[in-house]
Amino acid sequence: MNKQKVEAGPVQNGELALKRVAIDTYRENVAYLHRDCHVYRAEGFQALSKIQIRHGEHRILAVLNVVDDDAIVDPGELGLSEQAFTQFGAEAGARVSAAHAEPPRSMEAVRRKMNGEILDEQDFAAIARDINEHLYSKTELAAFLVASGQTGLDRDEILYLTRAMFETGERLNWDEPLVADKHCIGGIPGNRTSMLVVPIIAAHGMLIPKTSSRAITSPSGTADTMEVLANVELSPEALYHLGHQHRGCLAWGGTAHLAPVDDILISVERPLGLDSQGLMVASILSKKLAAGSTHLLIDIPVGPTAKVRHMRQALALRKLFEFVGDHLGIHLEVVITDGRQPVGRGIGPVLEARDVLQVLENDPDAPADLRQKSLHLAGRILEFDPDVRGGFGYAIARDILESGRALEKLQAIIAAQGKRESRLEPGPLSFEVKAREDGIVTAIDNYRLGRIARLAGAPMGKGAGVDLLAKVGDRVRAGDPLYRVHAEFKADFEFARQLCDRDSGYQLGDTPPPARIEPFN
Amino acid sequence: MNKQKVEAGPVQNGELALKRVAIDTYRENVAYLHRDCHVYRAEGFQALSKIQIRHGEHRILAVLNVVDDDAIVDPGELGLSEQAFTQFGAEAGARVSAAHAEPPRSMEAVRRKMNGEILDEQDFAAIARDINEHLYSKTELAAFLVASGQTGLDRDEILYLTRAMFETGERLNWDEPLVADKHCIGGIPGNRTSMLVVPIIAAHGMLIPKTSSRAITSPSGTADTMEVLANVELSPEALYHLGHQHRGCLAWGGTAHLAPVDDILISVERPLGLDSQGLMVASILSKKLAAGSTHLLIDIPVGPTAKVRHMRQALALRKLFEFVGDHLGIHLEVVITDGRQPVGRGIGPVLEARDVLQVLENDPDAPADLRQKSLHLAGRILEFDPDVRGGFGYAIARDILESGRALEKLQAIIAAQGKRESRLEPGPLSFEVKAREDGIVTAIDNYRLGRIARLAGAPMGKGAGVDLLAKVGDRVRAGDPLYRVHAEFKADFEFARQLCDRDSGYQLGDTPPPARIEPFN
Repeated sequence: MNKQKVEAGPVQNGELALKRVAIDTYRENVAYLHRDCHVYRAEGFQALSKIQIRHGEHRILAVLNVVDDDAIVDPGELGLSEQAFTQFGAEAGARVSAAHAEPPRSMEAVRRKMNGEILDEQDFAAIARDINEHLYSKTELAAFLVASGQTGLDRDEILYLTRAMFETGERLNWDEPLVADKHCIGGIPGNRTSMLVVPIIAAHGMLIPKTSSRAITSPSGTADTMEVLANVELSPEALYHLGHQHRGCLAWGGTAHLAPVDDILISVERPLGLDSQGLMVASILSKKLAAGSTHLLIDIPVGPTAKVRHMRQALALRKLFEFVGDHLGIHLEVVITDGRQPVGRGIGPVLEARDVLQVLENDPDAPADLRQKSLHLAGRILEFDPDVRGGFGYAIARDILESGRALEKLQAIIAAQGKRESRLEPGPLSFEVKAREDGIVTAIDNYRLGRIARLAGAPMGKGAGVDLLAKVGDRVRAGDPLYRVHAEFKADFEFARQLCDRDSGYQLGDTPPPARIEPFN
Repeated sequence: MNKQKVEAGPVQNGELALKRVAIDTYRENVAYLHRDCHVYRAEGFQALSKIQIRHGEHRILAVLNVVDDDAIVDPGELGLSEQAFTQFGAEAGARVSAAHAEPPRSMEAVRRKMNGEILDEQDFAAIARDINEHLYSKTELAAFLVASGQTGLDRDEILYLTRAMFETGERLNWDEPLVADKHCIGGIPGNRTSMLVVPIIAAHGMLIPKTSSRAITSPSGTADTMEVLANVELSPEALYHLGHQHRGCLAWGGTAHLAPVDDILISVERPLGLDSQGLMVASILSKKLAAGSTHLLIDIPVGPTAKVRHMRQALALRKLFEFVGDHLGIHLEVVITDGRQPVGRGIGPVLEARDVLQVLENDPDAPADLRQKSLHLAGRILEFDPDVRGGFGYAIARDILESGRALEKLQAIIAAQGKRESRLEPGPLSFEVKAREDGIVTAIDNYRLGRIARLAGAPMGKGAGVDLLAKVGDRVRAGDPLYRVHAEFKADFEFARQLCDRDSGYQLGDTPPPARIEPFN
C-alpha cells in the first residue's frame, strides 16, 4: 500500500473525473478504475462486485473492472461503459465519488424465494422497482430467475410479477374501447403471421397497433422482418399517429419503454436457456398491457420441437394466461396451433418478407400454411368485434385478403412508417441440403432449422437464412433439395454448413404423418 | 450491413489479431471486438453472451463486449481481458478466430437440477470439469449455485460434488500417515487461532502444513494476517520443504491450485450472499483433501450473529461434515465453539498479528479468549497423535505455549517463509466509539464489526481495522471507549465512521449474559 497516496491532491475531496469508455457491455453497467487510482483501492472494491457512483443527484450501480492502461482511464478518472454513462446522465469530466454498494434491498425477498417461500405483492413490486433502477447485477438477476423458475411461481405470484413489471414502465393509452393485439409464444421459425393479420384487421377498421420484439435467440422477429420493408423504430407519438390514421402498425416495441424490466430479465433468461411458463406469461402479458391492448389473441404452437411439446402442457399454459389476463382486465383468448414444422418457406428477414408479400399478392405459389394460419388467427381477432357474428371471422378475413385490401393496407402502413428501398435479395452465398434417400418428409426440427438460419447470419444479415423447398408430407427423391441456406459472410456460411453436415434437421420415412396434431396427447 | 466487408482482406481467412486489453475483469473472461470488426458482426454475437476463441490448440470462452474506440481494439483485432489473455496462452498478434459458443454440455444437468431432480456422480463430475475449464459464465455459475442451494443438495450429492471439486485440481502428497489440519467455518472476526495452533502442533512434531484463504467478504483471512509477518505466497515445492523441515507452515492456498473449482464458485457465491450448508461442506472438504490432509479439526462457532445461529443447526452441520469426511477417507472431528462475539481484540491484519504475538509471548495482557480457544483446538488436534492419551492434549498444548517453544516455532516458520520487515503499526487515522450510557456489554455483533473493519480498509489496508476495548461481560460507563477504528485512507475513514454512527454493533444491558452457550437451543 502506497501511503503517499493519502497526501496526494485528489484524495482531499475524494473525487474522480468521469469518463465515457467506448465499450458496450450489453446490459451490465461496468465502471473502470485504474489500478493506481488516486482515491480508491480498486482491487479492494472489486471482490465486492458492485459500487455506487455519485455526482449530485445522479447515482448508478456498476460492477468494477480494474484497468492497467492510462489510455482507457488514468488514475484520476472513473470510467463508465457506454450504456452506464448514458444512464448516469452526468457530463464527461464531472467530479464523481464512489462507495461500496449494498445489495439491493429486495434481494432479501429473492433470498426468501431461494428458500422456497411464496412472495407477496409488495415483494414483487420491490423487486421490479430495484431491477428497473438497474440495482441488480447479472448474477443477482440469474438468482431471481432461477429461484422463480425452479420452485415454479404459483398463479398468484405470476399475477403479482406481471403487474409489477407492467407498472414499472410507461403505458400507451389509445382512448378506444377495443385495442386488438396478437402474440405467439415463439419457437416456430418463419411464423410471420402478424405481418398478414395486422393489415387484415386494420383494413376491417379495428385498431391493432402491433409492437414486436427483435430476435434474441431466434433467426428473425417480426420487427426484424418488417424492417426489410419499412422503418420500425417509431416514437410513441408516431405510434399514436399511425394507429389513429391507419388503424394499425408493425413497429419495434423497444423505443416505447414498455415493461422495461421484461427486457432486463430476458437478457439473462435467454442465454441461460431458462423457460419457465410463469416467467413467459409475466413477460408477454406485462408487455401487452403496457402497449395498451384490451383484446389479445395468444397463439400456442404445439409440436415435438416446439416450445410446448404436449397438448396437456398447452392446456395448462392456456389456463395460466386466462387466469392472469382476467385478473388484469384484458380480454384474452388462446388458440393452440400446429407447431410440428416451420411456417411458410423462408426463415430469415428477407425470405420471410418475400413469403408475406406472396400471400398478400394472392400469388398461387404463396405458402399455403402461412396463408391459412394467418386467416385463422385474423378471423378469431375479427370476432372480438361485437358486430361480427361468431364463426364469420374467417370468411371476412379471407375476403379482405383476396380483395387486395390487405395488401393496400400494408403498403399504406409501410409508407407511413417510412418505406425502405431495400431489394428483397437473399444472401449471395448459398448452398443446398439434399435428401440422401427417397421418402416422405415426416418431421422438420424447428430448433435445428432456426439455429442453421441464425448461424447463417440471420437476423443481423437481412438476406441470410433458410429457404425450405420441401415441407412435412412432401415426397422427395434422393438428391432432391430439401432446403437452401443463404449467407452474406464467408464465416457465417461456413458455420451454417458445418451445422447442416452434422444434422440436416429433416426426417424422412415411408408413411405420411397424421394430418393434424392430436387434441389430447 | 456493409456488404463491402465481404470482399475486404481479413475476411478471406476469417482471422483477427490477438491483443491483450489491460482490463482486469475479475474472474470473468471478456473478449473485446470493435463494432466495425472486419470479420464478425460484433453485435450479432453479443446477445448470445458467449463466444469461443481459437488459435491452433488454444481455446477459450469469453463474454463479448463491443468496442467503439480504436485505442482499445481496432477493427482487425480481438482483445482479451488480462486473465483471459493469460489463460488463453497465445502471444499478442497471434491470428485468432471466433465462433458462437455452445453452452457447456453439463448445463443440461444444471437444468435438471433446476427442475428439482437429484443428480448422480457423473453429473457432478461433468459440471466440475466444465467449470474448471472456464466454460461457465457467471450467470451459469449463479444458476448452478442457486439451484443447488435451493432444493438443498442431499447428502450423497454433496459427497459427489466434494469429490468432483477435489479431483479437478492438484493434490499435495506428503508421504506421511498423519497430516493434521484445522478449519473454522468463518464468520467470527479476529478469530486467528491458526497462527497459534500451527506453531504449537508443529513444535510437538506433528505435521500441519496449513494453507489458508485470503479474506473475500471478511476483514482478514489467516493468509492476510500472516502476510503482515511473512511471505505467504509459496510454491508447492516450498510448501513441501517447509512441512518436512519445520513440520508446519502458514501459507496462502491460492498458488497451489487446490480445488480450483471452489475458487470459481466462491467468486459468485459470496457477492450473492449464498450460504448453503451443502456448498460450504463441499468447499471446505475439497480444499482440505486437495491439501493432502488426513486428520482435520473443524471449528463451528455458534451465536446469534455467527454463521450458525442455533445449536441444532450446528449439530446438523456436524453430521454432514462427518458423513462426507468419512466417505472420502479423512479423519474428521468437529468442535462447536462460542461464537457470540469476535475473538481477541484486533480485527484486521496488523491488529490481529499483534494479538497473536502477545499470546505467544505469554504477555499477561494478551487476549485471554484467543489464548484459551487456541489451546482448546490445539489440544484436540494433539490427540490425533496415537501416543497422546485422551484428555491430555490441552495440557501439552499449554506447556508448549508457556515454555516459549510455540513462539520459537512461529519465528522459525516466519524466517523460512521469508520474514517481512513491516512494523506492526495500526492505520494512522483513527477514532473511538464510546458507550452512550453505563452498563454491561451483553452482545457484540460479529457481522457489524466485521463490516466496520472492512469499510475502514481491511484487509487491503494492513493497518486498518477495529481494536476492541470492551468485550461481552465487561462493565462500562457512559463515555468509556468501546472500540477504536483505524484507517489508512481518508475515504475509508469516512465510510467506517458513517457506519458506526448508524449502529455501533454493541449492546449494553443491566445483567451479564450467561457464561457459555446453551448446548441445545
